[in-house]
Amino acid sequence: MQLGMIGAGRMGSGLVRRLTAREHSCVVYDPDPAAVGRLPDTHVSRAESFAELVQALAIPRIVWVMVPAARTGEVIAELEGLMEFDDVIVDGGNSYYRDAIARSRRLASRGIHYLDVGTSGGVHGADRGFCLMIGGESRIVERLEPIFRALAPGADTATRTPGRTGGITPAEHGYLHCGPAGSGHFVKMVHNGVEYGQMAALAEGMAILRNADVGAETRSVDAETAPLADADCYTYDFDIADILEVWRRGSVVSSWLVDLTAAAVYANPQLDEFSAEVDDSGEGRWAVQTAVDEGVPAPVLTAALYERFASRGEADYSRKALSAMRHAFGGHRRKGAAR
Amino acid sequence: MQLGMIGAGRMGSGLVRRLTAREHSCVVYDPDPAAVGRLPDTHVSRAESFAELVQALAIPRIVWVMVPAARTGEVIAELEGLMEFDDVIVDGGNSYYRDAIARSRRLASRGIHYLDVGTSGGVHGADRGFCLMIGGESRIVERLEPIFRALAPGADTATRTPGRTGGITPAEHGYLHCGPAGSGHFVKMVHNGVEYGQMAALAEGMAILRNADVGAETRSVDAETAPLADADCYTYDFDIADILEVWRRGSVVSSWLVDLTAAAVYANPQLDEFSAEVDDSGEGRWAVQTAVDEGVPAPVLTAALYERFASRGEADYSRKALSAMRHAFGGHRRKGAAR
Amino acid sequence: MQLGMIGAGRMGSGLVRRLTAREHSCVVYDPDPAAVGRLPDTHVSRAESFAELVQALAIPRIVWVMVPAARTGEVIAELEGLMEFDDVIVDGGNSYYRDAIARSRRLASRGIHYLDVGTSGGVHGADRGFCLMIGGESRIVERLEPIFRALAPGADTATRTPGRTGGITPAEHGYLHCGPAGSGHFVKMVHNGVEYGQMAALAEGMAILRNADVGAETRSVDAETAPLADADCYTYDFDIADILEVWRRGSVVSSWLVDLTAAAVYANPQLDEFSAEVDDSGEGRWAVQTAVDEGVPAPVLTAALYERFASRGEADYSRKALSAMRHAFGGHRRKGAAR
Amino acid sequence: MQLGMIGAGRMGSGLVRRLTAREHSCVVYDPDPAAVGRLPDTHVSRAESFAELVQALAIPRIVWVMVPAARTGEVIAELEGLMEFDDVIVDGGNSYYRDAIARSRRLASRGIHYLDVGTSGGVHGADRGFCLMIGGESRIVERLEPIFRALAPGADTATRTPGRTGGITPAEHGYLHCGPAGSGHFVKMVHNGVEYGQMAALAEGMAILRNADVGAETRSVDAETAPLADADCYTYDFDIADILEVWRRGSVVSSWLVDLTAAAVYANPQLDEFSAEVDDSGEGRWAVQTAVDEGVPAPVLTAALYERFASRGEADYSRKALSAMRHAFGGHRRKGAAR
Repeated sequence: MQLGMIGAGRMGSGLVRRLTAREHSCVVYDPDPAAVGRLPDTHVSRAESFAELVQALAIPRIVWVMVPAARTGEVIAELEGLMEFDDVIVDGGNSYYRDAIARSRRLASRGIHYLDVGTSGGVHGADRGFCLMIGGESRIVERLEPIFRALAPGADTATRTPGRTGGITPAEHGYLHCGPAGSGHFVKMVHNGVEYGQMAALAEGMAILRNADVGAETRSVDAETAPLADADCYTYDFDIADILEVWRRGSVVSSWLVDLTAAAVYANPQLDEFSAEVDDSGEGRWAVQTAVDEGVPAPVLTAALYERFASRGEADYSRKALSAMRHAFGGHRRKGAAR
Repeated sequence: MQLGMIGAGRMGSGLVRRLTAREHSCVVYDPDPAAVGRLPDTHVSRAESFAELVQALAIPRIVWVMVPAARTGEVIAELEGLMEFDDVIVDGGNSYYRDAIARSRRLASRGIHYLDVGTSGGVHGADRGFCLMIGGESRIVERLEPIFRALAPGADTATRTPGRTGGITPAEHGYLHCGPAGSGHFVKMVHNGVEYGQMAALAEGMAILRNADVGAETRSVDAETAPLADADCYTYDFDIADILEVWRRGSVVSSWLVDLTAAAVYANPQLDEFSAEVDDSGEGRWAVQTAVDEGVPAPVLTAALYERFASRGEADYSRKALSAMRHAFGGHRRKGAAR
Repeated sequence: MQLGMIGAGRMGSGLVRRLTAREHSCVVYDPDPAAVGRLPDTHVSRAESFAELVQALAIPRIVWVMVPAARTGEVIAELEGLMEFDDVIVDGGNSYYRDAIARSRRLASRGIHYLDVGTSGGVHGADRGFCLMIGGESRIVERLEPIFRALAPGADTATRTPGRTGGITPAEHGYLHCGPAGSGHFVKMVHNGVEYGQMAALAEGMAILRNADVGAETRSVDAETAPLADADCYTYDFDIADILEVWRRGSVVSSWLVDLTAAAVYANPQLDEFSAEVDDSGEGRWAVQTAVDEGVPAPVLTAALYERFASRGEADYSRKALSAMRHAFGGHRRKGAAR
Repeated sequence: MQLGMIGAGRMGSGLVRRLTAREHSCVVYDPDPAAVGRLPDTHVSRAESFAELVQALAIPRIVWVMVPAARTGEVIAELEGLMEFDDVIVDGGNSYYRDAIARSRRLASRGIHYLDVGTSGGVHGADRGFCLMIGGESRIVERLEPIFRALAPGADTATRTPGRTGGITPAEHGYLHCGPAGSGHFVKMVHNGVEYGQMAALAEGMAILRNADVGAETRSVDAETAPLADADCYTYDFDIADILEVWRRGSVVSSWLVDLTAAAVYANPQLDEFSAEVDDSGEGRWAVQTAVDEGVPAPVLTAALYERFASRGEADYSRKALSAMRHAFGGHRRKGAAR
């Protein structure tokens, strides 16, 4: 099939690579010509503008939008004016599912179809395949099935789930029509919430291992420093790369995330080339706000999100407030504070 | 090699099966004869008592203790009197690492070696191999290497970590000498903390998916019920088994835990055969207390632990206290409360 | 001054009592005639309908709406049709501040003023005074100043804050013009978030005290039950009413909340007349969602909110998912579970 | 009565001031002569050593130890050798309650009495009175009653709890015999846990208020930055000093902590003279570890504790691990990171 791709960044380029490697053809637009230039030549053609891209596509058209969430709205609005009845826009970025619902409604009023396709797999997707969570009309999902099947990892990338028999389902190939408009991004939002939680769980465990030598440190003896009772129980000097490695096989925590982290720590044991500030890109926030709307407790996902906020200094004001309170009732003045 | 095994429950029997399938021989004791009876015949012999088990072993002996953590201390104390200089006791249960340190010291004073071996893999370990986290003297770990190698999954059960070259290390086979006494259980404790966090992250995500239809419910209209602003954004009816299935391939959250959960939800979509009360067996608690001792924040692991406490009704008193407060300042009386 | 009050429930009746005790006059409507009947006679008149209430008021009118948040929108919409240019609607309930912004805009387009007045004080407000957090136009806030001053506790109900000199400010009387439309409910939302956190902090402390005798219990000895190492450190049998009483004087945690809770526990030491299910009425949710929008970590307020969700069984599905996972990898079957 | 005081720091000097103002006499030792020099002259005498202090006291002696928790053990050990049968040592610092139990046992074997007295009130205690939580033998508590009564705030510093009738109890004066050895520090530990939670709740609320203008900021538009949907709902510029002031009267959150914080923010609205690093001195840690031992969820107290850990950079390693993971699967490189 033929597909227009807007955005040739980390994710967009991976999608194009995987599609074209499977004989689909792509017309690609990216404001950065270098990004487009890095794509393979076979089955790829370039467009200089949205209009050129739309014109280059056979009818009914398929345009996949793969740009930052904050940009997606305006891109779709512009596309909307160029596309025609029965064309399809695929919103593959990390859009808020409510935006997906609104976009779907607006485009439907003009006869344009909209699919929201949560896309997981990161920079490894081109090789490993992408996990696709799809929302929208059934017959449009069916229309694009060859695309989804090409992008998905394929059933043989995991052993079959015990109990499943009969024909292989799309979910087992790695793509799923989750429900009506917005449901793809909803499921992707939850996926990313789970991802935040799993990342934080592993990172916390690594930190506990790393600090297992805290008994060897000298501590201040004053009323502001918690004493450590059993310092001799904290003298381990662990090789975290080896521990992650051993967890890769046979353990309950074995996962792709542990695989990747084992490689990262092996390459850079102190992790000092990485920033202690961690971004969040929206889905974690929406997942938490959704849990709150639903009245469902999500303490782990939320702790993981807040930890990212705090990593960027967003807790500093409340911390100063704590110091102000301690000073007010206890006369505490933080060691080394300004005055 | 030859090894005595005390305990033929879920874990102990799996260890025996895997060892004997690889031509090691085991002398097994369990207070429940039926448990021992279910073991294979080849390479397995039974003992009726600790004494009989110890006598049946070649010198220097190896006895692996695989009983509930609360029982391990007394079992080792009893064994201690029966074993001799240069014998080895392996503590394979989920012992607190500080108990491991103390046991190691006490046994060393009598010339008996002690290894603490955190053992992950659950009921699948017999087939899939066990992940072994080992603490103790290097030369004793070396002595038992054939045992550990037989139990571990083996290097070929995962692709090699990028960057690792040269000879395959023990960690890549699936067993690791982590450090001195206690370090094996320390690492296993952290492993289980991470496991708690990953389980809770996934469970929370599933709950958000499950409650995505909350907009369809009728809500009370009173000052005690939070209104739901955008009910029409909460009308999804998700097939969670399919969502877990699609996450198994290509997604960032793909893991053995997702594999297992996908099978469980496929077999029992409403999960109604499972209890809403969740046990915790010690390591999660120790992991949190360790993080606190180290001064390292572990909000995710802790939230996962507390959720288990609360599932067993342990939050009921504090909840009643909240109701008492609300009644005291606001005159709130819980709908349907006793009076 | 004269004011119409819609709603004579716990809060509305308290406002009327305090206003009329200070010589303001109130026209009151409540769908429940009994609620109106319980009000004092002096300075109070009753209306049978919104229309009658509006007609009974001098121009420019002031109508204070004090009904459940989920009802406020429709009440204001109905009032809107009955009121005239330069009239004032006060939204005193726990409305979402964004609804307040929208209502203010819509009413402004018809020349009707809108003030959002977050009102704290509960059933004690009639005697103790209400804490008022006000959003809207300055000149309308000034117009209602006699009302606010009558409702507020008054400056002499607390010692003056060190450093404050000169004339007593409205904040020191107990009412504050926080900013433009929505700001009153925003501040009240945050107030209630803090309230949730303080309540939960106290309730958790009480639960730790209550369970200080846990060492006296017998524990199961199996692989699913965490052992308790130092049972003899957990044999205290505390009198929680007395502990709350001693905290009322001189301690850092002394507060009105401790005062109220001390009385509640003194009257009902086991708290068994209170429900273990705790409602939440919206502000806690909005406070958390606002923190997330702002990118500010709010782990304490969120934990307090989730605890309320969980108290109502909203964690049961995720707990069953945990049990399903434990069974899948470990063969664990919860003691006493269905099968 | 006469009492020896070891330690004339913030707390010790306050105790001496309050006791001597009420005609009790104190013999004081502090390694820093300047600290002792700042004490009043009346009813105060100085000792140059422990031995001199002990000798100056009438038999049976009372020595109150008020030094940092990490120092308390050695001070009591040294005192032990100087004191005699039926003398009393009061441990007033923030000792771990288990240390109190152990000290009590050891001293009892020599006939020396030990009381653990959790002491709250901070630098304001000399004027406002101290809240005293006492553990130990009843008859020794009775022996020291005049001391406790002098230190406590007195019943008239708060209105009587509704329902309490008859004679004023010690708890109503502000001191409480909580139970046997260790119980005083246990209750103080829980008190401080609650204090941590209340401080954090208030600080989080202040941060939400402070960031209510976040809609006015310009945000990056890229895949790593969460978009803010409703920027126009975040344009409030709040006066936090005024908001705290209005909360002091009539609100549910009114408390001494709000009083103190209102003064601090009024004096320094930006809080920029305070450090964003917050110490913790032990009780918060013990409170969390105790909750875990008891199997009682304490999410709020724990979040408050972890926030202090994180404020001191203790989360940096786990944050780098998160960045490493994001880079590994998503190719994310933190804006502004090292390379």
